[in-house]
Parts: sequence; structure tokens; C-alpha cells
Amino acid sequence: MRYFLKLGYHGKNYFGWQIQPEQITVQEVIERCLSVLLREKIEVVGAGRTDTGVHAKEFIAHFDAQQIKDRTHFIFRLNAFLPKDIAVYNLIETIPDAHARFDAVSRTYEYKISVGKNPFWNELAYQVTKNLNVAKMNEAASCLIGKQNFQSFSRTGSDVKTYFCEVKEALWKREGDFLIFRITADRFLRNMVRAIVGTLLEVGYDKIPVQEVPKIIAQKDRSFAGPSAPAHGLYLVKVEYPQRLFLNKIKVEEAHKNQ
Amino acid sequence: MRYFLKLGYHGKNYFGWQIQPEQITVQEVIERCLSVLLREKIEVVGAGRTDTGVHAKEFIAHFDAQQIKDRTHFIFRLNAFLPKDIAVYNLIETIPDAHARFDAVSRTYEYKISVGKNPFWNELAYQVTKNLNVAKMNEAASCLIGKQNFQSFSRTGSDVKTYFCEVKEALWKREGDFLIFRITADRFLRNMVRAIVGTLLEVGYDKIPVQEVPKIIAQKDRSFAGPSAPAHGLYLVKVEYPQRLFLNKIKVEEAHKNQ
Repeated sequence: MRYFLKLGYHGKNYFGWQIQPEQITVQEVIERCLSVLLREKIEVVGAGRTDTGVHAKEFIAHFDAQQIKDRTHFIFRLNAFLPKDIAVYNLIETIPDAHARFDAVSRTYEYKISVGKNPFWNELAYQVTKNLNVAKMNEAASCLIGKQNFQSFSRTGSDVKTYFCEVKEALWKREGDFLIFRITADRFLRNMVRAIVGTLLEVGYDKIPVQEVPKIIAQKDRSFAGPSAPAHGLYLVKVEYPQRLFLNKIKVEEAHKNQ
Repeated sequence: MRYFLKLGYHGKNYFGWQIQPEQITVQEVIERCLSVLLREKIEVVGAGRTDTGVHAKEFIAHFDAQQIKDRTHFIFRLNAFLPKDIAVYNLIETIPDAHARFDAVSRTYEYKISVGKNPFWNELAYQVTKNLNVAKMNEAASCLIGKQNFQSFSRTGSDVKTYFCEVKEALWKREGDFLIFRITADRFLRNMVRAIVGTLLEVGYDKIPVQEVPKIIAQKDRSFAGPSAPAHGLYLVKVEYPQRLFLNKIKVEEAHKNQ
């Protein structure tokens, strides 16, 4: 049976999602815990890789295993076994060829900025004490919408087939003492959101004029964009999949309803 | 000039508010930073003492100093100088004999419980995965209201003149994935809120019947109450003072308005 695991993690203690030699990663911890609980070697495939220190409120990974009868109980045991900074929220049955990475149709990230000093959010938001022009930052954000080449916001030396991403949503919102940037796209390049946020912050500080942003994109060169914003403000918040992957689950639930 | 300083702190790295030999405390850090910035030896008096690891969203301390002309700029400099886990929110001029501790008419604490596993709140909420009967916990909380002897919820060996406190408000509220206990009283004994929360949790787990709570209070003996809830879920959130302490400030503001 193929399962989708919905989980969240505090990124501080991990070198990102993906397994790396000599470093502790979320994938490695999840695989170890699943393998012990299920008494078979489990390999998980994540929806993407998050960078060192980046958080996930909702991350999806798939794995194959013998059928798990009581999923609620299994989630309870898995959470008790996993460290405090990783939580599993759901375990969903999928069709056999569902793929956490290739089937994802969109990913949403949020970048959280604490406006002013906040002693409680040092690890979970980037603290900015200077004034920011949010109207200009939103004007600049609107230049990102659409299918474009985002090489200017990609880690240099990234080995990818294409730099084109389709950005569907890019918006700054004030929420109490926080400023949240929300961006949704079909795919993201490595370091892309942090490079975008760093550039939009330069716009907010009046260091880069809004009309420069389309030109930065057109350059296709990382050196024209602003610095990367720190990892600890960034959260992966949503990964979306087509409904057809969960047909089994829907059928099972409908069968239950009809009983 | 006597000032009231309004501040907040993340309690994790401190042995509470009050200066202690060989331990780092919030009071000591504040005094050191104020003394350096104001170039005179400053001593601060806090509204109370918080225990090791307890947080404060709003703590008040008073100190005497030469008049500070630009208070907004001073707060900015003080925040830049203080560590990340202590923030100053306001600096208020008071009458010369105003006292942060003796003039406080009420204090409010909140205890934050994360219902289920939450990887982001390990340091700032107590995580409970077992089911809690919140209706019963609120019934038990209502027994605390009024002026009563709270020795049963006081640290044994506390050297105080009276165990009487007047509790004005004691209520559990559900807020999303959190359960918040809010309690207001004229004064609190050491460890009192954590002992109360620990006891109410036993009621929520159906280990102590609601009708036992008035009997526990009547025993005046700590050993009859439940265990102390952990420090990292507890926040001092408000300290209230009579308006007369700020007459100077109000007069100044009115003079500005009339100009």
C-alpha cells in the first residue's frame, strides 16, 4: 500500500529535509522511526527539499508499506516516537503510483517577519526593526506573477533543466505584529523564496526601486537580485495534489458512509 | 525622575526575574544595560518575581534616573543593546513614590497548553496529548474565585505573612490548537499558578473529582494538591496599577493636546 504522510517540523535542528551524509535531516529521522515501528525497511520520498533551518507546517512524503490497520493509533505511536520538533498530522492511502514530488501541482511558502523586537519569535520569524514600505513591496511582488524564468532568484550553480516557474500568488499581509509573505507556484528553484524575500525587503527599505524588479528578473543572473533572507523565517505551508490520487480513500470513506 | 519600564521576556535562559548569586536573571541584565546606556548605576524594582523558565509578555519594573528626553529613541537603543530574548515596549514617567511591586493592584497569568503535538511550541506551551475534560476544569477553576487562603498551592517553606489572595478571574478557554488558563488576582504566592494548573489538569484527566477542589483548598497543605505544571507554559501577561501613578504623564499629554 502506498501512503502519503502529512507532517510538520521546526527546521532549527535539521540540515533540511533530504538525506545527506554526516548530517541530520528530517527524511532520515522519519525513515528510521517508520522502519522501527513497521518492522521493515521504509524509504520515504518527499514533496521537495527544504533548505537547512527552513520550517514546514505541512510537508508531504510518500512511502510503501504493508497495510496499516489502525491509522489513528499508528499516528499516535509515531508521534510519541519522533522527536519533539517533528509532528505527523495525517496518514492517507493513495493510488499505487502516486508520487509526493512529481504529482504535486503547487507548493505554498510563507515568510514571517516580526515587525519590531519580539522575544518569543526569535527562532520562527525574521526580526526587522527598520521601517518597511509594504505598498511598494506588494507592487514588486505583483511583478513575480505568471510563468517566468526565475534564474535571478536561483542558487548559482543549481543544476536544473529549466528555470521557468509559474507563480500564482505573491502577496505581503500584515497580521498583528507580523508581516507575512505568501507565495504559491507550481515549482520553486533552490533558495528562490529567500532570494525573492531578500529582494523585496530591499524594495521595502527603498534601496531598490519597484521598477527595477522586472529588470532583475530579465537579467537571469543571481547577482542582480538582493541578498537571501534568513532561513528561520521561511515555512513550507501547503503542497497540493490532484484529487485522483486519493480515489481509494474517497471510495473507502463513501463505502463507510453507505453502510 | 521615576520611570516604569514595560518589558517582556522569553524565560528559557533565565533563573527568573530576581537577582541571584551565580545565576543569570532578567533583573541583572536589565540593570546592566540601563546602567551602561544612562551612564549611572541603575537599580530596578520588579512587579514581582517570576520563577526560573517562566515567561513574561508584560512585566513592569521601576527605576530612578535623570530625565530621559527622547524616550522613543531610548527604547530603540535599549532594545538594540538587550539580548534577543528580552524586549522593552514602553517607558512611562510616574510620580516619585510609585512602586512597581507595592502599587500593583492585580496580576494576570496565562498558562498555555498545546493540545496534541506541535513542533513549533515546545518552548512556549506545555504539550498534552491525553484527553482533557475542559468543562470539569472550568468547574474546578470557579472554586478558586474570591479571597481565600491558598496555602495548598504555595511552595512549602514559603516565608510569607499571609496566604490570602483574592482571585478575580480563573478560566480555561480553547483557542485553536491551544487551551489557555487565565487567572487574575491581587497577589500570587510562589509557584501558585503552576500548582493550580497541575491540580486542574488532574481534574481534566478525571484523577481528582471536581468536588475535591474546595476540600484541597481547605486543607491548607501543599501535599493535597496536584503536581506543579512545567514552567515553560506559564506567562505573566498583565500587571495593573491605579491611574494616579501616571498623573504627570497624563498632565503632560493634556498640555500637548491643548497647545
